[in-house]
Amino acid sequence: MISQFKHIGIVTRPQTPHIQETLHTLVDFLHEKKLDIYLDEASLRDGSACTEDAERCHILDKGSLGKKCDLVVVLGGDGTFLSVARIIAPFRVPVIGVNQGHLGFLTQVPRENMTPILNGMLSGKYLPEERILLETTLIRDGEAVTTSLALNDVVLSRGGAGQMIEFEVFINKEFVYTQRSDGLIVSTPTGSTAYALAAGGPIMQASLRAFTLVPICPQSMTNRPIAVADTCEIEILVTKGGDARAHFDGQSFIDIHTFDRIKIHRYRHPLRVLHPTDYQYYKTLRQKLHWGEQLV
Amino acid sequence: MISQFKHIGIVTRPQTPHIQETLHTLVDFLHEKKLDIYLDEASLRDGSACTEDAERCHILDKGSLGKKCDLVVVLGGDGTFLSVARIIAPFRVPVIGVNQGHLGFLTQVPRENMTPILNGMLSGKYLPEERILLETTLIRDGEAVTTSLALNDVVLSRGGAGQMIEFEVFINKEFVYTQRSDGLIVSTPTGSTAYALAAGGPIMQASLRAFTLVPICPQSMTNRPIAVADTCEIEILVTKGGDARAHFDGQSFIDIHTFDRIKIHRYRHPLRVLHPTDYQYYKTLRQKLHWGEQLV
Amino acid sequence: MISQFKHIGIVTRPQTPHIQETLHTLVDFLHEKKLDIYLDEASLRDGSACTEDAERCHILDKGSLGKKCDLVVVLGGDGTFLSVARIIAPFRVPVIGVNQGHLGFLTQVPRENMTPILNGMLSGKYLPEERILLETTLIRDGEAVTTSLALNDVVLSRGGAGQMIEFEVFINKEFVYTQRSDGLIVSTPTGSTAYALAAGGPIMQASLRAFTLVPICPQSMTNRPIAVADTCEIEILVTKGGDARAHFDGQSFIDIHTFDRIKIHRYRHPLRVLHPTDYQYYKTLRQKLHWGEQLV
Amino acid sequence: MISQFKHIGIVTRPQTPHIQETLHTLVDFLHEKKLDIYLDEASLRDGSACTEDAERCHILDKGSLGKKCDLVVVLGGDGTFLSVARIIAPFRVPVIGVNQGHLGFLTQVPRENMTPILNGMLSGKYLPEERILLETTLIRDGEAVTTSLALNDVVLSRGGAGQMIEFEVFINKEFVYTQRSDGLIVSTPTGSTAYALAAGGPIMQASLRAFTLVPICPQSMTNRPIAVADTCEIEILVTKGGDARAHFDGQSFIDIHTFDRIKIHRYRHPLRVLHPTDYQYYKTLRQKLHWGEQLV
Repeated sequence: MISQFKHIGIVTRPQTPHIQETLHTLVDFLHEKKLDIYLDEASLRDGSACTEDAERCHILDKGSLGKKCDLVVVLGGDGTFLSVARIIAPFRVPVIGVNQGHLGFLTQVPRENMTPILNGMLSGKYLPEERILLETTLIRDGEAVTTSLALNDVVLSRGGAGQMIEFEVFINKEFVYTQRSDGLIVSTPTGSTAYALAAGGPIMQASLRAFTLVPICPQSMTNRPIAVADTCEIEILVTKGGDARAHFDGQSFIDIHTFDRIKIHRYRHPLRVLHPTDYQYYKTLRQKLHWGEQLV
Repeated sequence: MISQFKHIGIVTRPQTPHIQETLHTLVDFLHEKKLDIYLDEASLRDGSACTEDAERCHILDKGSLGKKCDLVVVLGGDGTFLSVARIIAPFRVPVIGVNQGHLGFLTQVPRENMTPILNGMLSGKYLPEERILLETTLIRDGEAVTTSLALNDVVLSRGGAGQMIEFEVFINKEFVYTQRSDGLIVSTPTGSTAYALAAGGPIMQASLRAFTLVPICPQSMTNRPIAVADTCEIEILVTKGGDARAHFDGQSFIDIHTFDRIKIHRYRHPLRVLHPTDYQYYKTLRQKLHWGEQLV
Repeated sequence: MISQFKHIGIVTRPQTPHIQETLHTLVDFLHEKKLDIYLDEASLRDGSACTEDAERCHILDKGSLGKKCDLVVVLGGDGTFLSVARIIAPFRVPVIGVNQGHLGFLTQVPRENMTPILNGMLSGKYLPEERILLETTLIRDGEAVTTSLALNDVVLSRGGAGQMIEFEVFINKEFVYTQRSDGLIVSTPTGSTAYALAAGGPIMQASLRAFTLVPICPQSMTNRPIAVADTCEIEILVTKGGDARAHFDGQSFIDIHTFDRIKIHRYRHPLRVLHPTDYQYYKTLRQKLHWGEQLV
Repeated sequence: MISQFKHIGIVTRPQTPHIQETLHTLVDFLHEKKLDIYLDEASLRDGSACTEDAERCHILDKGSLGKKCDLVVVLGGDGTFLSVARIIAPFRVPVIGVNQGHLGFLTQVPRENMTPILNGMLSGKYLPEERILLETTLIRDGEAVTTSLALNDVVLSRGGAGQMIEFEVFINKEFVYTQRSDGLIVSTPTGSTAYALAAGGPIMQASLRAFTLVPICPQSMTNRPIAVADTCEIEILVTKGGDARAHFDGQSFIDIHTFDRIKIHRYRHPLRVLHPTDYQYYKTLRQKLHWGEQLV
C-alpha cells in the first residue's frame, strides 16, 4: 500500500524499557517502505537509537521536525506526546502516538501491534481528530514578555512558600471575580482528564470547543469550575503573586510577578492527532477511569 | 418611541406580593402605547389581575400566547420564566423577565424600574441572547411515548423508595458507562447554575453550546461531570428503574420504568431572551454566587 | 477446641447462589461441635435451608435470635449484616459476617474458607470491634411517635416529587443552620464508606467516636460535611417537608411531615463485630476503594 | 473584681491599623488593675507600642512569654493567634484572642468592646476550650532531625516545580495507601475550617478528638478525606519528594527529601483558649461561612 506520508519524524521517550527495539522495529518498517525518516537527535544522545538506525535516518533537532516532516510518530506516553505537540503545532503536521505499555489518552497505538496498525494508518486508514491548544502571552509592565503553547493546560500556581495567591479573572474583558487560592488551571478538553480533573474540574469531551477555568483549593467555596467557549479570551491579573509561576502542560514554566497579566486564548492552529480506526473516545475514558462496563 | 413589538403577552407568578399593582402598571404602560395585550387566563383565576386590567387585555390560555404574541413579558422569578419558556419556545417568540424583588438569572428587569426599562426595550434597546433547550423523548417498548422540553435540565432521579437506580449512558450511540446513583442531571448552560451546581457540576457560560451530564451521588467516585457539545444525542437506558422519574426543569415529570430509553438532544429552536442593555452575565453570577469583587 | 459460644444463631441472605450448600456446611460444622443452632425462619421460607438442616436447628423468628443466642453468624453481604445488626444490637450479642463471594466492609470471612476460620473464632481467636449505632426518635406534635436504629446512616431525603426540602439543624440544642437540599445524611463511621461517601462525605476510621452530617445536593455551596463527637444529640426540625422520608440503613423508612422533629443520638449499646485475626481495616478500604498499593 | 490572672503577656499583629491605640487601651486597663504586663519585644520594634506603654511593661522575647505569664492576650487575627499558640502551648498558658476588626474563629473578643469583656474574663467569666495541637517529627536517615508544633495543620506540599509528589501513608503503623498528589493536609479540628476546607475536607466540630487527612488534588479520585481518632500516629514516607516541603500552620516550613519520614501525633498538651461567655461555636461558623439563618 502507498503511504500518504513521505517524510516521517520520530521522537522517543528517554530512559524507556525496550525503546531501542521499538525504535528499531519502526525504522525497519519505514525504511522498507522507502520513506524519509527524521530522527530527533535526543534519541541518539540518550541512547534510544542504535548506530544502525542513526545511519538510516536524518538526524535533526526536535524544533526542526515540523519543517521537514509531514507526519510525526511519538514513541512514548502522553507526557512525550505533549512535549512534541507544543513544538509541532505551529507547523500543522499530524501526530501519531505509540504507547510503550500503558494505553494513553493520546497514545492509542500499542507498541506490540505497532507495524500492522501503522501500515494501515500510513495508507489513510485512521481517524483524524483536531485538538485545540492554548496560547498564553505574559504581559509585564504593559509589554508582551513571552508567548507559550499548551495542549493540556496553563496552570497559574503558588510556589513553595505555601501562601495562597490572589488574582482577578476577566473573560472577553468582562470582570469575572477576584480569587484567593493555590492557583487556577485553564484547561483544554485534552487536559480535562489530567490535572484539572484532580482539582475537581469536569471531563470535557475531546471535540468540545471549550476551556475550563478550575480553581485550585480556592478559599471561597463558591469559586467553582467554569466552562467557556474556546473563542473567549481569558485574562488573569495577578494582584498578589508571591512566588507564583505559570506552568505549561506541567513541563515548562515562567515566573510570575505581582501585577503581571496572563492572557490566554485558543491557538490559531489545532493539533491534528491520528488515531487507529478502532479508536473509541469513551472506551479510553472507561479504561483510564475504571468506569462501569455495560452489563450485556 | 415606536415599539418593535405589537402583540405583548403577559404571564404572572401566582400568589406574589404586589403582583396586582405591578401588573396594573404594566397594562397601563402597554395600553397607553396602544399595543395589543394578551393576558394568561391564570392571572385572572388566581386574582393577580384586577377587573379593569382584564377588560383591557385579550384573555387566553398560556398555550395560545405563542400563536398570538410577538413578545412575552413574564412578571415573576426564574421559576415562572422556566414554565413559560417551555411553552413559548416552539413559537420562537422572545421573552422578557421582570423579577418581583430578587434578581434572577433570567429575570433581569427589576420591578421598581420596569416601565422606563421596558420603554427602551420595546424600541429595540435590548441585548438579545439565545438559550438552548433540551428535547426529551421517552421510548418504551420501542415506541416514542412522550416528548418534553426543558430550559434548565432533565433529571432522571430515584423516587421516595431511597434505592439507587442503574442505567447505561450513550452519547451519539457510543456507550459511555454504566452508572449506579441517585440519578443523572442533563443540564443546559442555563441550568448549570441550578440543580446541576448543587450536585457538583461546573458552571457553563450561558453562550456555550454544550450540555453537562452530572451524576447525583454516584456510587463510583470516578463518575464525574462530563461536558459535551450540544450537537450530541444522549441516550439513557434505565436498567434498574425502581420508582424513578424524569423531571423537566423540576416542574413536571414522567414515571420511568426499567428498560425505558430516554433520548435527549438540543431542541431545534433556541429561546430568545431579551435583557436590558446594561446586562452583564458575570455580574449576575457574582451577585448570585457571592463571588469576590474587584478590589479597586 | 472448645467453643466460647454455645448458642449460635444463623441468618441467610435470600436468593443467593450456593446459599443452601454454604448453610449446610455451616450447620454440619456447628452440629459436630454439639452447639445449639438457631435458624431464622426466613431461611426456611425462602428455600435457603434444606429439610435436614431445618431438623438440626431450632427455628425461630429473626427478632428472637437476640434472646436465645450468644453469637449470630450472618451468611450474606453487608446488606444482610445491616438488617441483622439493627435487630440484634439491643441484646448485645456479637455478630460474625460470612460474605458470599465479595469481600464486605462488615462481612470479612470468605465463604470458601469459612469452617477453619470459624473454628478459630469460636475458640476465641478473633479481633472484636465495637461499632456505634444511631438511635432516632421522631417527634410529631410534641410526642415521640417512633424509634429506630441504624448502623450505617439515617437519611432524611426528599421523595419522588423532586422538590428540595428545608430544615433546621441543631447540635446539642445549639442552632447550626437552615438548609435547603435533597436531604441530610447522618452517618456513623460504619456508614461513612456507604451513601455518605457518594454524597461527598469523608471516610471515618471505624473506631472514631463521631458522626458526620453530610448534605445531599445542598443549594448553598458552603453547606459542607460536618463531623461531630458521638456524644452529641442531633435534632432536625423539618420546616418544608414535601414528600420527605427518613431512611434507616436504606432498608426501612418512615414518612416525614412538615414540623416533624428528628432526634438522633448514639444508641446506648454498640454492636460487637468479630473479625478474623488477620483483619486489617485499611486493607479492606484499599481493596474496596481501589487505593494505591505499596510499591515494594 | 479580682483577676484570676496576675502576669499578662501581650502579642500584637504587626502593621495593623489602630494597633497602637488598642494596645494603649489594653495596657492602661491592665496597669490600673495593677497586673504585671509582659510585652513581646516585636511590638516595640515594629512600632505597635508607644514609649509610654513600653515603660509600663516588661519587655521580653516571644519565646519567654510562656515562662513568665499566666495568661497571654493576642491583639490580632487568627494568623497572629496561631503563631503565638505554637510558642505558648508547651507552657500550658491560656490565651485570649482580641480581633482587630473581623471576627476570627479563634479571636472572638472584638476590639471595640475589649475592656468590659476582658474585665469579666479576668475575673473568671469565660468559656474555656481545649484545642489539640499536632507534633511533627521529621526522620531523615533514621534520625529525628526536627520537631514542630501546629494548631491548624501540617501540610506536606509540592514546591514551585509543579510536579506531583508521591508518598505512602501509615496510621498506627498500618499501611493505608500510596498517594500521588500535590500533597497532604493533616488537620486538627481547629484547622478544619482553614486550608483543609479549601482542599475539600470536612468541618470538624472544635471539640472532636480527631484529625483529618485531606489529599490536595490527588491523582486518584478515590483518595478522599479520612478522619481518624487523635490518638493515632500518622506516618508519611515520602517516596518521590521533588521540591516538597512540610508547612506548619502555613507559617513555617522545612524542606523534605525523598525517603524522609514525617511522623505526626497529638501534642501532649492541648492549648487552652478562653472565650467570652456569649461564645457560640456554630454562630461563628454561620457568620464565617455565610450559612443560612433560622427563619424565625
